[in-house]
Amino acid sequence: MGESPVKLISSFGSTFSHRAEVALRLKRVPYELIVEDLRNKSQQLLTHNPIHKKVPVLLHGDRPPICESLVIIEYVDEAFAGRPLLPTDPHARATARFWAHFIDEKCMKSLWAALWMEPSEAQRRSLVEAKGSLALLEEHLGERSFFGGDSIGLVDIAASVLAHWLGVMEKISEVTVVTDEEFPALCHWARRYVSDEDVKTCLPERGELVAMFSGCKEMFRSMAMAPPQQ
Amino acid sequence: MGESPVKLISSFGSTFSHRAEVALRLKRVPYELIVEDLRNKSQQLLTHNPIHKKVPVLLHGDRPPICESLVIIEYVDEAFAGRPLLPTDPHARATARFWAHFIDEKCMKSLWAALWMEPSEAQRRSLVEAKGSLALLEEHLGERSFFGGDSIGLVDIAASVLAHWLGVMEKISEVTVVTDEEFPALCHWARRYVSDEDVKTCLPERGELVAMFSGCKEMFRSMAMAPPQQ
Repeated sequence: MGESPVKLISSFGSTFSHRAEVALRLKRVPYELIVEDLRNKSQQLLTHNPIHKKVPVLLHGDRPPICESLVIIEYVDEAFAGRPLLPTDPHARATARFWAHFIDEKCMKSLWAALWMEPSEAQRRSLVEAKGSLALLEEHLGERSFFGGDSIGLVDIAASVLAHWLGVMEKISEVTVVTDEEFPALCHWARRYVSDEDVKTCLPERGELVAMFSGCKEMFRSMAMAPPQQ
Repeated sequence: MGESPVKLISSFGSTFSHRAEVALRLKRVPYELIVEDLRNKSQQLLTHNPIHKKVPVLLHGDRPPICESLVIIEYVDEAFAGRPLLPTDPHARATARFWAHFIDEKCMKSLWAALWMEPSEAQRRSLVEAKGSLALLEEHLGERSFFGGDSIGLVDIAASVLAHWLGVMEKISEVTVVTDEEFPALCHWARRYVSDEDVKTCLPERGELVAMFSGCKEMFRSMAMAPPQQ
């Protein structure tokens, strides 16, 4: 299977696509990137992910597509040789899975509401909740270079939205969530993450991301209670 | 680590606790069951799961607790010898993980709303959505005995709520979702699942479950848009 061609259906600016792509990069897996226009989803995307109709979708050889970014990361880790993205110890693996899901289920939901809801009591509560979740991440990271220890792993990849996208979203929404004073470990980590040579090759350029997110601001506001999934 | 004592913090009637417990049973791991009263959470639960404050929590030796039912199942599979709960092939593992998360994120949310919302257009939409998700599960199961093939695996355990709890909830909510005519494969599967000798030992007795859920009906109705998590 390691020799079969790998294709990744992605979309520009998608944090979930980035997760899948960076996993492939870190494992040194050659891949073809297929960039979707999500405003006009291709038949290829709809055929390969009929359930969620979302990116990323990983195609490996002639086997059925693999969907959902965290599932893809674990698949890439298990199907290919190269540097591990998850620890080998079962307890450490469970801990990494816990925090990866924590980011999607706790952090992102409140963060999304805090960023895009109209200023209100509910928005302020979301901001407090988001900061509470980020404080738990900050504490979990502690003094380590990466959540994965000395190198980037599952939780770092899951948290990539905080490293590169959050600043752009803060700028456009005019809501500040993370500062060096309040979250020094996360801010150091973010700078290390975006400086990694493999990560850099698959981060969307900031200016283009600002342009894209500026155009989406009203849409984000209208769906502020429903954060993006996958 | 295999020799260290295992404790499971659970609560009566919790589908998520059942997931963790059945994983231990199937792997032949001896464990001590600690049954929480969720109306009056113990200091032990709050200390061991300060983030979610929910059951199940797995304690293995003196290592930090492991939370979240799907994370616990994978941990039990990796930390202990015995029959595998996930396949060994990376693609099959990814497929299992996809469907396990599908059950929590797609099936259960719409199912919960369909069962407990007041009769309304939104409730009917949820019912249609729930049946659509169940139809995908039905198709995925196909002719196999279990989602795991010939034996119970991750997806069967994740789906256990459909095998034993759904009928009780249908009775109390007076909403029928699953019939033999509409979902024959799922109904056959449900009967096989609850007949398994290991599963049987950790299923809550139906009469007690009916009593518990009857008492919770109004609470479920009031939180019908917020399905239980983990």
